Amino acid sequence: MPDHSPSPRRVSVNDLHAFCREVFTRAGLGEAPAGTAADVLVTTDTWGVFTHGTKLLPGYVRRLRAGGIRAVDPVVVAEGPAWTIVDGRSALGQVTGVYAMRAAVEKARRVGVAYVGVRNSNHFGAAGYYATLAAREGLFGIAMANDTPSVAAPGSRGPITGTNPLAYAFPAGDADPVVLDIAMSTVAGGKVYASYQLGKPIPADWLVDRDGRPTSDASLYPHNAALAPMTGHKGYGLALMIEALSGIVTGAEITTRIASWMLGDPAVPTGHGAAFLAIDVAAMTGADAFAARVRSLSDEIHAAPTAEGVERLHLPGEREWANRRRALAEGVTLPADVTGTLVPLAAELGMEPAWLVPPASD
Amino acid sequence: MPDHSPSPRRVSVNDLHAFCREVFTRAGLGEAPAGTAADVLVTTDTWGVFTHGTKLLPGYVRRLRAGGIRAVDPVVVAEGPAWTIVDGRSALGQVTGVYAMRAAVEKARRVGVAYVGVRNSNHFGAAGYYATLAAREGLFGIAMANDTPSVAAPGSRGPITGTNPLAYAFPAGDADPVVLDIAMSTVAGGKVYASYQLGKPIPADWLVDRDGRPTSDASLYPHNAALAPMTGHKGYGLALMIEALSGIVTGAEITTRIASWMLGDPAVPTGHGAAFLAIDVAAMTGADAFAARVRSLSDEIHAAPTAEGVERLHLPGEREWANRRRALAEGVTLPADVTGTLVPLAAELGMEPAWLVPPASD
Repeated sequence: MPDHSPSPRRVSVNDLHAFCREVFTRAGLGEAPAGTAADVLVTTDTWGVFTHGTKLLPGYVRRLRAGGIRAVDPVVVAEGPAWTIVDGRSALGQVTGVYAMRAAVEKARRVGVAYVGVRNSNHFGAAGYYATLAAREGLFGIAMANDTPSVAAPGSRGPITGTNPLAYAFPAGDADPVVLDIAMSTVAGGKVYASYQLGKPIPADWLVDRDGRPTSDASLYPHNAALAPMTGHKGYGLALMIEALSGIVTGAEITTRIASWMLGDPAVPTGHGAAFLAIDVAAMTGADAFAARVRSLSDEIHAAPTAEGVERLHLPGEREWANRRRALAEGVTLPADVTGTLVPLAAELGMEPAWLVPPASD
Repeated sequence: MPDHSPSPRRVSVNDLHAFCREVFTRAGLGEAPAGTAADVLVTTDTWGVFTHGTKLLPGYVRRLRAGGIRAVDPVVVAEGPAWTIVDGRSALGQVTGVYAMRAAVEKARRVGVAYVGVRNSNHFGAAGYYATLAAREGLFGIAMANDTPSVAAPGSRGPITGTNPLAYAFPAGDADPVVLDIAMSTVAGGKVYASYQLGKPIPADWLVDRDGRPTSDASLYPHNAALAPMTGHKGYGLALMIEALSGIVTGAEITTRIASWMLGDPAVPTGHGAAFLAIDVAAMTGADAFAARVRSLSDEIHAAPTAEGVERLHLPGEREWANRRRALAEGVTLPADVTGTLVPLAAELGMEPAWLVPPASD
């Protein structure tokens, strides 16, 4: 019988993409949106950000089947020369995210800057993907989304804001774009889970207990502790900015009215909001001049003196691009927690990709 | 003889504004820019942010006299429907900042969103003032600037980025705008100075020494230690985003090529860059609908359970607006470190405001 025990698997980027696309089409998506969503998830895996890559497939498939995610196209509900409000109609968040950022890029090319806000979005995976989409087109891109509360505010007794991811990316000429993708909590919830699973102690500034006090007991998360906001009032404040741009402007749900895409009823749309900004820096300063100035900054940072044990400073995203180049050349090695979710999913969908489910003789 | 010893002084907002305006006109500014700059500094004092208010006057006057700040008007050097690049011509940063944000508001009213980037700017004081200017007009405002390096990057042996302030503000109907104004270091340099002066120990995550290691020796700052970046890679990464939007797009100086406005030659322009974004949320969702949704978020936060000893949660800026209401009613009480810089300045300019320099009989 096939080996279903979760273990790391190496797979070519093409095979992983084909698998992912087929999962989506079997779950009811059309070829085009399935390809779009596969590209988001597989690119994220190639960056080494496995928490936001194909590991999410089972959850998305469950919602696609139950109706909380719908096989529909997002639509424009209002627009002006430099802005668009999109109704995601509870389509897959990745489909709506790509649609929205493409719309932002198109408008920014015409007028210089554009904001596209989305309501009835969904969990959209890695915000950095959408920012990078703009950077690949030569624009400065910003992507963000609200989420169901899991992060405390300074002085609160429970969660007040979502982790509310914020990403930006800008082009760097022939080099890879500079990309930052961060959450507004001190650390991601996944890091708390992992420490708990590994029995590792956590610092007291990662979690806040139900009395609003710092705790280093990772077992309390998520039901009896909230994530601590990044640097206290700064992370809390930025989370509210993201809430305003993603939720309040767009008419999306906000804070407690957003359902958890993981823990909520899979038949009920989550109501997430999201926002995308594109800035056509090439129109303002010339693509070559912009690239030369980024190069100068990059050279300066790479040449800066480093602390003992640090080879050189990195620009945001540099490690992820190195991971991606290796993945494109050698395949991506999915860790056991990812294959552990994909093996049963493949079985459920009647799929037996050789790289994931080797024959018994393997 | 008059009492020149630094001590706190209470002054009406009008008197402080008149004093500030006259300082600027005596230093060579015209009436209009002097009034604009006075409003920025006095508003900042009324918020209780005394590090960025009238305390800065002596430094600005020194530069105005030496030529590093010029009594000129900023000019538009390039523009499109949703963007403008402004050359500040080394005018006072406050004058250029207000000019740029007003330009952003005007364009955003026409097309929905606008970016205005500035080169040859200067130290512009509190970023929150400019964001609030947009919010007072009903728009979502964002303001930021680069600065000479004082903040370490993860793994660096010295400063790599500036503190690179970032502020946003959005309207809240009849209530005060929500305003966040933060630097990309864990704490502001002024807080390190203050702890040193008071002999208070500082946590090890505020500073990084010349070997790139955390230090709790406040005496090392600024010459032998850099400020630590907010949450490590997050603050560093956001500082680079601000560098890109303020400096790289605009053609301003970046990082080490920006002169320190405090420590640098006052005859040499600093070369700062700055960036302003305005988003016409009322055009997208209706001013009333936006305000109602902000109110709902605000009510939710104010009603949230709090930790012991915390009366209620605050929205960003709430404390500052309370300070301002008190200052408008009762006058603003300038702390001793502020009056300590204003008394000699007034003497130098031949000014003797009664609230600052009381007669000997006082």
